[in-house]
Amino acid sequence: MIQTKLAIIGVGHVGSQVLTDCSHLNLFSDIVLIDSNEDTARGEALDHRHALAASYRTHSKIYAGDYADCADADVIIISAGVSEKPRPGEDMPPRALMGKENANEIRKIMAGITQHTKDAIIILITNPVDTITYIAENEFDYPKGKIFGTGTTLDTFRYRQIVAAHYQVDPKNVSGYIMGEHGSTAFPAFSSTTVGALTLTQSDALLDPAAPLDREFVTQEVVHTASDVFNWKGWTNSGIGEVAAVLSRAVMLDEKSIFPVTATVDGFYNCHGEAAFSMPCIIGRNGLEKQIPLPLDDEEYEKLQLSIKDIQFTLQSVR
Amino acid sequence: MIQTKLAIIGVGHVGSQVLTDCSHLNLFSDIVLIDSNEDTARGEALDHRHALAASYRTHSKIYAGDYADCADADVIIISAGVSEKPRPGEDMPPRALMGKENANEIRKIMAGITQHTKDAIIILITNPVDTITYIAENEFDYPKGKIFGTGTTLDTFRYRQIVAAHYQVDPKNVSGYIMGEHGSTAFPAFSSTTVGALTLTQSDALLDPAAPLDREFVTQEVVHTASDVFNWKGWTNSGIGEVAAVLSRAVMLDEKSIFPVTATVDGFYNCHGEAAFSMPCIIGRNGLEKQIPLPLDDEEYEKLQLSIKDIQFTLQSVR
Amino acid sequence: MIQTKLAIIGVGHVGSQVLTDCSHLNLFSDIVLIDSNEDTARGEALDHRHALAASYRTHSKIYAGDYADCADADVIIISAGVSEKPRPGEDMPPRALMGKENANEIRKIMAGITQHTKDAIIILITNPVDTITYIAENEFDYPKGKIFGTGTTLDTFRYRQIVAAHYQVDPKNVSGYIMGEHGSTAFPAFSSTTVGALTLTQSDALLDPAAPLDREFVTQEVVHTASDVFNWKGWTNSGIGEVAAVLSRAVMLDEKSIFPVTATVDGFYNCHGEAAFSMPCIIGRNGLEKQIPLPLDDEEYEKLQLSIKDIQFTLQSVR
Amino acid sequence: MIQTKLAIIGVGHVGSQVLTDCSHLNLFSDIVLIDSNEDTARGEALDHRHALAASYRTHSKIYAGDYADCADADVIIISAGVSEKPRPGEDMPPRALMGKENANEIRKIMAGITQHTKDAIIILITNPVDTITYIAENEFDYPKGKIFGTGTTLDTFRYRQIVAAHYQVDPKNVSGYIMGEHGSTAFPAFSSTTVGALTLTQSDALLDPAAPLDREFVTQEVVHTASDVFNWKGWTNSGIGEVAAVLSRAVMLDEKSIFPVTATVDGFYNCHGEAAFSMPCIIGRNGLEKQIPLPLDDEEYEKLQLSIKDIQFTLQSVR
Repeated sequence: MIQTKLAIIGVGHVGSQVLTDCSHLNLFSDIVLIDSNEDTARGEALDHRHALAASYRTHSKIYAGDYADCADADVIIISAGVSEKPRPGEDMPPRALMGKENANEIRKIMAGITQHTKDAIIILITNPVDTITYIAENEFDYPKGKIFGTGTTLDTFRYRQIVAAHYQVDPKNVSGYIMGEHGSTAFPAFSSTTVGALTLTQSDALLDPAAPLDREFVTQEVVHTASDVFNWKGWTNSGIGEVAAVLSRAVMLDEKSIFPVTATVDGFYNCHGEAAFSMPCIIGRNGLEKQIPLPLDDEEYEKLQLSIKDIQFTLQSVR
Repeated sequence: MIQTKLAIIGVGHVGSQVLTDCSHLNLFSDIVLIDSNEDTARGEALDHRHALAASYRTHSKIYAGDYADCADADVIIISAGVSEKPRPGEDMPPRALMGKENANEIRKIMAGITQHTKDAIIILITNPVDTITYIAENEFDYPKGKIFGTGTTLDTFRYRQIVAAHYQVDPKNVSGYIMGEHGSTAFPAFSSTTVGALTLTQSDALLDPAAPLDREFVTQEVVHTASDVFNWKGWTNSGIGEVAAVLSRAVMLDEKSIFPVTATVDGFYNCHGEAAFSMPCIIGRNGLEKQIPLPLDDEEYEKLQLSIKDIQFTLQSVR
Repeated sequence: MIQTKLAIIGVGHVGSQVLTDCSHLNLFSDIVLIDSNEDTARGEALDHRHALAASYRTHSKIYAGDYADCADADVIIISAGVSEKPRPGEDMPPRALMGKENANEIRKIMAGITQHTKDAIIILITNPVDTITYIAENEFDYPKGKIFGTGTTLDTFRYRQIVAAHYQVDPKNVSGYIMGEHGSTAFPAFSSTTVGALTLTQSDALLDPAAPLDREFVTQEVVHTASDVFNWKGWTNSGIGEVAAVLSRAVMLDEKSIFPVTATVDGFYNCHGEAAFSMPCIIGRNGLEKQIPLPLDDEEYEKLQLSIKDIQFTLQSVR
Repeated sequence: MIQTKLAIIGVGHVGSQVLTDCSHLNLFSDIVLIDSNEDTARGEALDHRHALAASYRTHSKIYAGDYADCADADVIIISAGVSEKPRPGEDMPPRALMGKENANEIRKIMAGITQHTKDAIIILITNPVDTITYIAENEFDYPKGKIFGTGTTLDTFRYRQIVAAHYQVDPKNVSGYIMGEHGSTAFPAFSSTTVGALTLTQSDALLDPAAPLDREFVTQEVVHTASDVFNWKGWTNSGIGEVAAVLSRAVMLDEKSIFPVTATVDGFYNCHGEAAFSMPCIIGRNGLEKQIPLPLDDEEYEKLQLSIKDIQFTLQSVR
């Protein structure tokens, strides 16, 4: 029997947007929502179902469920967990705290999933996503490649928007990746970035920008733009929803598309299995099918080492 | 110069979803967001722009702006206003209160828009939408037909989902309308509803449902399902976002599609300009191009009269 | 391993268009083309693959293959066979001749398919489609429901366009079916047709057409419009390509959508397994899941009996 | 009044496919077909209209017309002209002959268009497209940038497919351009091609292909694959249809996307207005908004000079 099934675990602001964007893919006959608050899952399912009566929308089954519904899922997206918020009066740094809470949450979720399947491709969004992915990937004996985190895919989209806006071109014409941690130590691999096949230096010369690209500014802006959205809007969900959708599509249609997702790295960039971080990866039917060790210049290499250290530090705090 | 421009006024939960769904239409080169809280508009614009760097997404311009940006808009969607919430300790009925606040809000917004354009097609979502539409349509001398409210289009989608689920068919195969108020007095026009060209009575006989359709239950369920979403999820936005998107598409592509939108009714169902309510309408390039007086049976006619009275009562309270 | 696979057998003008429309669905990771002329299949595959490098297009695998590639197909669309052409100087009526040639062709194809699978949902386009479907369905012990023909789905689209154009509304708002043979005895079930929930009589009164709908004219026009396309363009493929695509989508996403496809009828309309013809059917994951005996008025019932006789006559000639 | 209008001039195999792909964009409220054979235009319009009655399709107006219908067109796509075919027994080289016929044809068409508009963005497909574009651009005083040819955009898609297949990745991850003539002297700019931000040399080392990329083979294959399609299928239209669609979308949504289209080059690569050829260009609301002089290595530069000479030679022959 033909069935294409997506499970979304955690349907807050992010999960709701993931649902919208994945529903627009017209790829899944079944979408099951799982949330510790069952009412939230039921409410989202009901609200989204109404949208499907519109002309142009495919008729999918969207419903609230539980871990047993993961048994025959093709893709599972995990967007559960507490989100970043200032926590005045706390002694511990808020990020590590969030890390701890979410690490425990993810352990519960993975325990729930693995009771029913080790076949589904799992895409993790929960932050700190590198740490969370490391835990989920390594503590549950989940088949290698079948689980990965969104990592710096969203940061990469942001980066491409910023570069594209600078040169006034379509961001789809910008090729280049944000590497390392999905967080404050993320950095653009400028040396391999191109705009319509031009290097950044060539772009400065040939695309007539108002000024040359300020790489320091861009590096900060990629990280900063996330907090701008967070501070102005109250949360970030539109960008990450689309990230989850394109990754799901790459898996379902076996596209072999390259995205900088996060997973444990063993043998590249002097990392030997002690951290998960983002580097360009081929995504297809088997999930993360290949990590591509994009060459870095010296400065980029140094930044990556710092970023790996930062991820390891967070990882220690949640063991 | 080619330009297709959408303005969204009010980007809370509803406006954000409208933006997502309208962005997925790939129809607008420009989408401007206007909100009394400028940061919210900037945050939403920024977050959504990031999504556009993904492959498969068209590169549109999404940005925060003000009423002057409406000057060359093709479509304006208004999703501003306070939303329904329990207000413990208040003496006045919450709905009338919301009506008053939102009536004043809409007057400000229409004053802002009409300083810059009377050409755009305006689609109103703000509740109580029949009352709000009546005010916006009649107090600002806006060209007839170029302004209308989403009305019972969402209720109609809900109705079709409920009927479709009962008979286990695609809701796109259900034809039938919710008439009257977008609110508690809304009712399905059962007598003209069909499922794949079968009347409801024929459907009961030929589609093998577990039980005949319980019309009383369905009538209540259409209204009740809205409060289920509201109570379970905290707000409703997925369904209404899609409604705004399909209406915008019908306008932009001049589709002549029939939707039960709300506008002042003058000459049908014994209403002579004293209320706005929903009946099937043809939506095209000129907005609401024709109201279609769908024949009702006696019971439905009575319900409509009650619904009109209810709308008029709310209307009085906000003058 | 996740895989969604479509096989298209016969890639002439129709098969090429089926490929285009099905590729636009973004639903299949694999599309295999099978043609007795292997070069044609290779050429089409190659030409379509080039299109997939465009932004916005999903990366699918499109390739030429043979019957062994049907083994794991989810859907198989058969558009092989000689097409209608005047054959001056021939003694036998051209249609029966085409019937004979295509009947033999379909027997070869079904023999090829059934060597490798009886799981795929098979959608037949080859004409005379009612006869061809009857043969394919009954001579190869293929599981009931898993095989059906496009039947009058295209005629129904044509009918809805003609009615919609008359009343100047979106054809998606017209509900109603063409019944019987996909051919000259096809007829519209006027008595159950609606336009935005209005009967045709109500539509004449309320939608202000230039003149009442001329039912005799429409009946002829539905059949005639096919030969107009054929004579003006040289073949018909755009409409039927879309038909194949929406039917495939209904199967893949288990939509339970209602389309008037053709299959052997046993127990409805006084037909007891001796012919295949079109009536509204629910299409989902299991293919044709349910035939719906749409009530007909006396005149329509008579027309259907004539249509069935006509199909049986053709059927005799190809045994 | 909102209207988005496309005109397609010439609806043979290519024009029909352009129509299909542009109709799938859901961007145009009106599509007018113009062909010297009016029946062909009417047949295509009719056949495609039937497709639009399917669920999921927007209701557009598709109809046959004449040059007067171009007056308010936003985009005009020209796919008219005789196509390449062996012409045994002819003395003149077939290509130059085709050039002459099509040059005369394009002069008639441009005369027809410019009687009614100089505002529309014109996209030329007719071959030899560089020569045809040069004539259309320079002999009718059409505003600079508002007219361009598809050039090597299709060759570029082919190139990306070939490179992507070699490294087993999504062609959307290949960035790189075919430069020069749309014809036998076209060549890939290998030196600036990247695969997921890797140079081709890095790709050979890091993506584990079966063998290093054979650049000579790829260069020939890009040209050869066109004749493979032509010889196997009888014509090429699927790839070029999608090219026309993405270019139209870039114009309509003002995407600023980069495509290697053809137009007269004045001041780059030692060409001073004496030829039209393809180089990367920014496509937006104003058509070809900017030509980007992609840096070439010595070998590529030499190839481009040869290609320019070849185009000039063809150009001479059709004056």
